[in-house]
Amino acid sequence: MESSSSFLPQISPHSFFPQKPSKWRNTTSHSTRIKCQKMYVPGFGEASPEAKAAKHLHDFFTYVAVRIVDAQLESYNFEGHAELQEFLEKHPLNDGDKFCADLMRESSRHKALALRILEVRSAYCKNDFEWDNLKRLASQMVEDRNTRLMRDYVSETILPTENES
Amino acid sequence: MESSSSFLPQISPHSFFPQKPSKWRNTTSHSTRIKCQKMYVPGFGEASPEAKAAKHLHDFFTYVAVRIVDAQLESYNFEGHAELQEFLEKHPLNDGDKFCADLMRESSRHKALALRILEVRSAYCKNDFEWDNLKRLASQMVEDRNTRLMRDYVSETILPTENES
Repeated sequence: MESSSSFLPQISPHSFFPQKPSKWRNTTSHSTRIKCQKMYVPGFGEASPEAKAAKHLHDFFTYVAVRIVDAQLESYNFEGHAELQEFLEKHPLNDGDKFCADLMRESSRHKALALRILEVRSAYCKNDFEWDNLKRLASQMVEDRNTRLMRDYVSETILPTENES
Repeated sequence: MESSSSFLPQISPHSFFPQKPSKWRNTTSHSTRIKCQKMYVPGFGEASPEAKAAKHLHDFFTYVAVRIVDAQLESYNFEGHAELQEFLEKHPLNDGDKFCADLMRESSRHKALALRILEVRSAYCKNDFEWDNLKRLASQMVEDRNTRLMRDYVSETILPTENES
């Protein structure tokens, strides 16, 4: 099974950042420099952090599509449901494209299932996935967790001193 | 190390979807039913697919923040850079919050590094991460990969027949 280090690119302690870091990178013209300064993010090579995150969302959409299709089959096509379950037992879903490619080649019935999964992941990504909600939840999580981490640390370190006094 | 199955919730072949699936769920009033019908996604319990994806983006932002801070330190504070590198050798970055909590408790110098990482991940999430670009890249990837999977399958299955004729 693929480890989550693929989402978090491999960190080698001795070659953590092969590129020469420069603190800022500008992405637009001189006239709008102040607004467009961004922190330099090393270690993604030719890709970007957004591309890395997109790849993993893509696999996530395949996983969601498989669950959607399987739940639909369960309600009216028990044979198809059983076949998909059996296939899932033997094929990991970590690499969504490989899973679909393998499913397509298993049999003609499996091919129909695979085509449906492709269709569903496209529709889910385009219509159902709540992108604004993702942004809101992730931003809120960063703020909440930052606050909690600092509060926990302060509780641990300040309270004993107060008790002693 | 945490496996990526945490991003793709555990699939037990025998209890794949504990909930009774219903094909559609409505999220708004009857008058707008057609526009707001969404495919039923089982298996996320009280959470949502968006919340699951947000949790993993949150860990990703911590990873990015560590890289940003480390690259900045490398250019003007070699001691801090070396300390962070040494800490990274012993502590996995898969759980971003645990990493920051441990870093905070290592020493007062490490605590300062941790606070900076918290600050940077908040700023990165709010200002630098290109959310629109993430949506564009992920949507494009789904379409491209769907096309490629079908084209590859057709190439494999149709061409031999053509060659035979």
